[in-house]
Amino acid sequence: MEKLVPTQKTRVRRGPAKAVFDREMLYQIFDEARMAHVGFSVDEQSYVIPMLAWRVGDQLYIHGSRGSRMIKALTEGAQSCVTATLIDGMVLSKSAFHHSTNYRSAVVFGPFRAVEDPAEINESLQLFLEGIAPGRWQEVRPPSEKELKATSILAIKLEEASVKVRTGPANEDPEDLDLPVWTGQLQLKQVITGMVADDNTSADIDTPDYSQAW
Amino acid sequence: MEKLVPTQKTRVRRGPAKAVFDREMLYQIFDEARMAHVGFSVDEQSYVIPMLAWRVGDQLYIHGSRGSRMIKALTEGAQSCVTATLIDGMVLSKSAFHHSTNYRSAVVFGPFRAVEDPAEINESLQLFLEGIAPGRWQEVRPPSEKELKATSILAIKLEEASVKVRTGPANEDPEDLDLPVWTGQLQLKQVITGMVADDNTSADIDTPDYSQAW
Repeated sequence: MEKLVPTQKTRVRRGPAKAVFDREMLYQIFDEARMAHVGFSVDEQSYVIPMLAWRVGDQLYIHGSRGSRMIKALTEGAQSCVTATLIDGMVLSKSAFHHSTNYRSAVVFGPFRAVEDPAEINESLQLFLEGIAPGRWQEVRPPSEKELKATSILAIKLEEASVKVRTGPANEDPEDLDLPVWTGQLQLKQVITGMVADDNTSADIDTPDYSQAW
Repeated sequence: MEKLVPTQKTRVRRGPAKAVFDREMLYQIFDEARMAHVGFSVDEQSYVIPMLAWRVGDQLYIHGSRGSRMIKALTEGAQSCVTATLIDGMVLSKSAFHHSTNYRSAVVFGPFRAVEDPAEINESLQLFLEGIAPGRWQEVRPPSEKELKATSILAIKLEEASVKVRTGPANEDPEDLDLPVWTGQLQLKQVITGMVADDNTSADIDTPDYSQAW
């Protein structure tokens, strides 16, 4: 798989040990995070909006209401930035200063394009839902013409992108090593804590298991 | 507690039912998320950077290496945006279109200020660590003069801010209600999955329990 090539924007300037130029890692982070924060600017004011984002090949998709401020700004060619971050744990050190965070983050820059091709729209929406709830696309009512018209699908190519990853223990100062303080990682993970049916689910319908996707 | 007042920037334009003007909710979201995505713009290019962010009163703090691109841009008065998002669950509907996400997000706009007062720096760093690992500040080596000099602490006032919250089941179309499809919420939560000691922890040191903070 083609490596990521750093540019002026994506070059990681601090902590170069954390930069990763692995396209597969870039894909994994966006896939696992599912949510990304989309940044754009209107009249010199920055906005950062949380969006579900899903990847198909080297394209990252988002969707939103046609005519929303964000969709409008993004389709007008804003030099946007999309960032997905997974926190894997808090890194506990012997010293206040060397506490840190183990995380994986992926960033992609560029303008979005509005997806207009009905086949691409349909495929991307299907893969979006399948990534959350495998098998579900076949069970639910498909989108109507009217619903599709109300929705904008935007895509950004995973080209000018960067990845940062931190793993491992704290970078202790040698003179702190003998302090009698517990050090290590407080591990964090996003997990499914339940499947809670709503009032529209009749008692004879089995609860689906989507855990393999998470 | 004083309510949040919507401005041109913070007015929630889509799905007004989701806007919340509750300052306490704003605080809770930043407190629980601990991580925020900071957006700013340099030469019309947007950047979105994940940062640990912690709140003290009506101030939200971040820290970074003095001289980094982000710290430089933010202290030069960039019209930044800081967003924290908690995903509570995926909302599964009878139709593809009405799938949704239950989430809580908090946004604050404005320039950051560089914190220069040593007492404010010390207090905010202490509360930062205590929020992650209660009791730990007293156990670890405090920051040295040199470490403090290498670190910039920035604060943004939680003034021009907005909150969006989605809860509950999907907004089904009435004609879909009888479809024999399970609907409800796939609940998600970030949890501690372990406390893993590193090689610098001797066997006689007990593993601390920080779970009450999470």
